[in-house]
Amino acid sequence: MIRVGTGFDVHAYADADAEAAADGQSRAEPVLRLAGLDWPGEPALAGHSDGDAVCHAVVDALLSAAGLGDIGGLVGVDEPGTAGAASTGFVTTAIERLASNGWSPVNVSVQIVGNRPRFAPRRDEAQLVMSELVGAPVTLSATTTDHLGFTGRGEGLAVIATALIARADA
Amino acid sequence: MIRVGTGFDVHAYADADAEAAADGQSRAEPVLRLAGLDWPGEPALAGHSDGDAVCHAVVDALLSAAGLGDIGGLVGVDEPGTAGAASTGFVTTAIERLASNGWSPVNVSVQIVGNRPRFAPRRDEAQLVMSELVGAPVTLSATTTDHLGFTGRGEGLAVIATALIARADA
Amino acid sequence: MIRVGTGFDVHAYADADAEAAADGQSRAEPVLRLAGLDWPGEPALAGHSDGDAVCHAVVDALLSAAGLGDIGGLVGVDEPGTAGAASTGFVTTAIERLASNGWSPVNVSVQIVGNRPRFAPRRDEAQLVMSELVGAPVTLSATTTDHLGFTGRGEGLAVIATALIARADA
Repeated sequence: MIRVGTGFDVHAYADADAEAAADGQSRAEPVLRLAGLDWPGEPALAGHSDGDAVCHAVVDALLSAAGLGDIGGLVGVDEPGTAGAASTGFVTTAIERLASNGWSPVNVSVQIVGNRPRFAPRRDEAQLVMSELVGAPVTLSATTTDHLGFTGRGEGLAVIATALIARADA
Repeated sequence: MIRVGTGFDVHAYADADAEAAADGQSRAEPVLRLAGLDWPGEPALAGHSDGDAVCHAVVDALLSAAGLGDIGGLVGVDEPGTAGAASTGFVTTAIERLASNGWSPVNVSVQIVGNRPRFAPRRDEAQLVMSELVGAPVTLSATTTDHLGFTGRGEGLAVIATALIARADA
Repeated sequence: MIRVGTGFDVHAYADADAEAAADGQSRAEPVLRLAGLDWPGEPALAGHSDGDAVCHAVVDALLSAAGLGDIGGLVGVDEPGTAGAASTGFVTTAIERLASNGWSPVNVSVQIVGNRPRFAPRRDEAQLVMSELVGAPVTLSATTTDHLGFTGRGEGLAVIATALIARADA
């Protein structure tokens, strides 16, 4: 038995100063987290967790394929304990949830849409990290929107993920 | 034989007053129709039919997978008889069209992108209705775009659907 | 063995006057290239190549499914020799790359998002051309975004492609 799943996620770039002010404390400049990697020098994405939109879209694609809800229900993203959490942990939890329902990922294909970071130079590295997490090939591409829309204006990043999963029993 | 299909649909939120004026008559405030459900208290989507963007994207994903055109050709959405029509009927027609060409849906995964409605509390209900219509698992997730773009500004709703279908003969 | 792949591409409409000025020469009004067809009378898309966003999304979906990178790495889109190149050639190159890695396309489903061109009257023609290039069924649909976003304002065109590919060895 085979199933397909779609995931989509958007995060705005974070305003580091505003965040620091809200916290009432000085803190280190946040670093972009994307596809399980740190991207020093790149503007961070906002979000309750680390804002890794690739991990979030991959989780939603996998859970949707298996009919196991979405990332909100999986890991309690609104809970205090998950603030700033590494989204790679959400991927691991999703894979465990799939496995306990008999599903294995076949592959996940991910398209990143945005101006930054320049992705190709670190594609192999990111694919290795994500594929290790998922336990199946995760492939990543990046494209821009020709200066159009919120991604083209550099306001945020969008990610589309499509997952194929399989179960032995049919 | 197995095939994949993609569907995408966007509807703006309707302006109830403008519609009533154009009709030259008073009428009940329209109610949002989404994923085959009524959503009382939520702003309705514009459209020639009932504006159910989930049904429309699902139909397009299924028809595209089978190479049977799209929703425009299927049900004559521009014809007077379909004004205000329940889009669930379009899903049923699409499934019949697939069946008469030997195709059965395997599953459909749907991602709703927009600020409203808050979807998770009625996910199970919506999945039940849509899966019943399609005759195979339809899974639904919803996400926002962090206040970015037309979905983030609450101007409209976007839906991405991916379908897997199968035919016995190969 | 079967795999799924996602591709997404956006191109802005070209400004013919600006391009001619930049070239320092008069030139023929560019014609839209989309899905391997010329669309006389339709505004052209900008891009280093012929701007055929359907071909580009199809290439990215196929390469992503096979884990063979993306269109940027495949054909050196930034190289002088590819300026104005027919994007149908990129599809052929991608298929060759897949074949040399043992992969065959199963089908590709494409959703065009934009106001123009009116696609349905030439759907069959476009599907024939694209399916011939890919060597498997390529199905095409088009939708608008209800005047919302950059596609709704007619600033550009977006294309989503989902591909299924197979390899004999597993």
